[in-house]
Amino acid sequence: MKRSSPRTLPVVPLALSLALAFTVAGAPAAAQESGSWSIGERIVPAPAGASDALRSALSATPAPNVAASKQQTPQSDEQWLVMQKATANANLDQLASGFGVSIEKDEIEGVTVYRVAPGKVHPRHTDHLFLHVHGGGYVLNGGDASVTEAAMVASRAGIMALSVDYRMPPEHPFPAAVEDVVSVYKHLLENRSAKSVAIGGTSAGGGLSLAAVHRFIALGLDVPGAIYAGTPWADLTKTSDSLFTNEGLDRILVTYDGFLGAAARLYADGHDMKDPLISPVYGDFEGFPPTYLITGTRDMFLSDTARTHRKLRAAGVVADLHVYEGVAHADYLILVGSPESEDVFAEVSAFFKTHLE
Amino acid sequence: MKRSSPRTLPVVPLALSLALAFTVAGAPAAAQESGSWSIGERIVPAPAGASDALRSALSATPAPNVAASKQQTPQSDEQWLVMQKATANANLDQLASGFGVSIEKDEIEGVTVYRVAPGKVHPRHTDHLFLHVHGGGYVLNGGDASVTEAAMVASRAGIMALSVDYRMPPEHPFPAAVEDVVSVYKHLLENRSAKSVAIGGTSAGGGLSLAAVHRFIALGLDVPGAIYAGTPWADLTKTSDSLFTNEGLDRILVTYDGFLGAAARLYADGHDMKDPLISPVYGDFEGFPPTYLITGTRDMFLSDTARTHRKLRAAGVVADLHVYEGVAHADYLILVGSPESEDVFAEVSAFFKTHLE
Repeated sequence: MKRSSPRTLPVVPLALSLALAFTVAGAPAAAQESGSWSIGERIVPAPAGASDALRSALSATPAPNVAASKQQTPQSDEQWLVMQKATANANLDQLASGFGVSIEKDEIEGVTVYRVAPGKVHPRHTDHLFLHVHGGGYVLNGGDASVTEAAMVASRAGIMALSVDYRMPPEHPFPAAVEDVVSVYKHLLENRSAKSVAIGGTSAGGGLSLAAVHRFIALGLDVPGAIYAGTPWADLTKTSDSLFTNEGLDRILVTYDGFLGAAARLYADGHDMKDPLISPVYGDFEGFPPTYLITGTRDMFLSDTARTHRKLRAAGVVADLHVYEGVAHADYLILVGSPESEDVFAEVSAFFKTHLE
Repeated sequence: MKRSSPRTLPVVPLALSLALAFTVAGAPAAAQESGSWSIGERIVPAPAGASDALRSALSATPAPNVAASKQQTPQSDEQWLVMQKATANANLDQLASGFGVSIEKDEIEGVTVYRVAPGKVHPRHTDHLFLHVHGGGYVLNGGDASVTEAAMVASRAGIMALSVDYRMPPEHPFPAAVEDVVSVYKHLLENRSAKSVAIGGTSAGGGLSLAAVHRFIALGLDVPGAIYAGTPWADLTKTSDSLFTNEGLDRILVTYDGFLGAAARLYADGHDMKDPLISPVYGDFEGFPPTYLITGTRDMFLSDTARTHRKLRAAGVVADLHVYEGVAHADYLILVGSPESEDVFAEVSAFFKTHLE
């Protein structure tokens, strides 16, 4: 199952549908004629300081509906599985073509993985690998869909990527996902140096990458050369300030008290949610590799990202925080090709080139 | 007028009164028994992920009252002058004693300045100087009060500081403030290298520091060795996303449509507010020195700070962004001694030690 084809650009719809599947957005609330959102008593205009692409997209989107989002949460394992299945599809040919990469499905230590090769490997990355961990609240966006972000990074950075299709609840709750990432990483270390590997992803993928590095250190493994933590879900409890301050402003996550909280409970499966392997912000970050963190002013994980950044800095780790104007959770994966998205991947690419060995 | 005395700690009340004078806070809105704030339909708890000191302070503070804050804006030059005078006082003996520094009032090129000497100069900073530019919306916190933050930085970093008591409206609107900073800087360059100087401050002081560097470059002057931009007022127009998203959540600034907007108009005095010397985010950042930026999740200048960071990065400048959990505008100057405040000054101190020559 190997795919390769020249770069075309039918990728936005795919990424969009992926994100919308994750959103579980409710029916629209009020939208002003001007493109402003009415949220309770507040009028919040589309961000004038953002790019035209982002501002237009936000103007065209109804205000997030918190009340409706709270209602639309799966109530049984069967309902979760329906949703999981619905978000596991991607057209790999289209994806490969859109990003000018080849994609090959494989298995490592019993874990499904996708190998992604860019059209051209950057000279700095001849021996490097991006170990990608997909997002989706630990429940969604598995299967073929898991490879989307890996294709973006591989294409932009000119780096080989390996995307881990880790096991997920309801069938495989914590610690299955962490175990799968650890298995694949240990296998990689048989044939390459840890410092040649960057690990990372967005949302749950960012959180799981951080959790996995906690586990690598506990197991005495060498740590990777760099971490890419895109708006990481670093705290599954309802603690972070931005879960409150950005509720209803983040058009992707909308509210904790719906899909997010339910996914957290489903994944943790009764374990203490403050276990650093579940909520990595509670761990000890000493010995972590250089870490690149991304969030936005409307991101409900702004605080998860900022709190992780502070803990990394307190541990003396090289950690680079980036906040994008008007950007909600993972917007850079949705508005592919927007200046904000291009900037994110250019910065991540530069960070890998600086830190991988 | 030289003051020097051993370090004691009566500083919090002074800094607090300074900040509260700047706040122009209205009458309290609703405060929950739990310490949560009721803001319209929202319940926003004190940030559980912040330090005990910050969380306690927020729990004890009523929710910011946007409607009242909109009403409490000076309506005439006379009213501005009353407010200006009321915020220009500080007990320099107490300040010197509290931070273990000496403070001397002086004049450079006709501009009032304060020379601050730490109890002990750090070996790395033997020949270095922190050129401090105070905040206060370009209207307040002048006179003896202008030196407060300079004393904090001098004390924490072990660096000599010089605080500029620049001219302010209503008597001296833009460009007087920029001219005063330029005059002092040019004078300094007669006897020291630009790279031995760090320039910076908080709020309008951060914005004015950035604007001044735009002007230094336009004048062909060497740029300083580093910039400290604490939650800089980098855009005086009502553009930034966080002016909307954090309205009513930022207990210091509360709303743009009161003191802030009025101060912007008073300072700009009919000039285009998008002039980079008024709103530095609109300038070209090529050639800027390494810049350290600070903000918080509840800061109405979160966007000003993040937008400036992105423009610096786009220009290839070393720029380091830090976002503190639950922190509103300039909270680190108010809750002196809190873990957040200590962390800010430790990081700024380390940044100066890395970049000054």
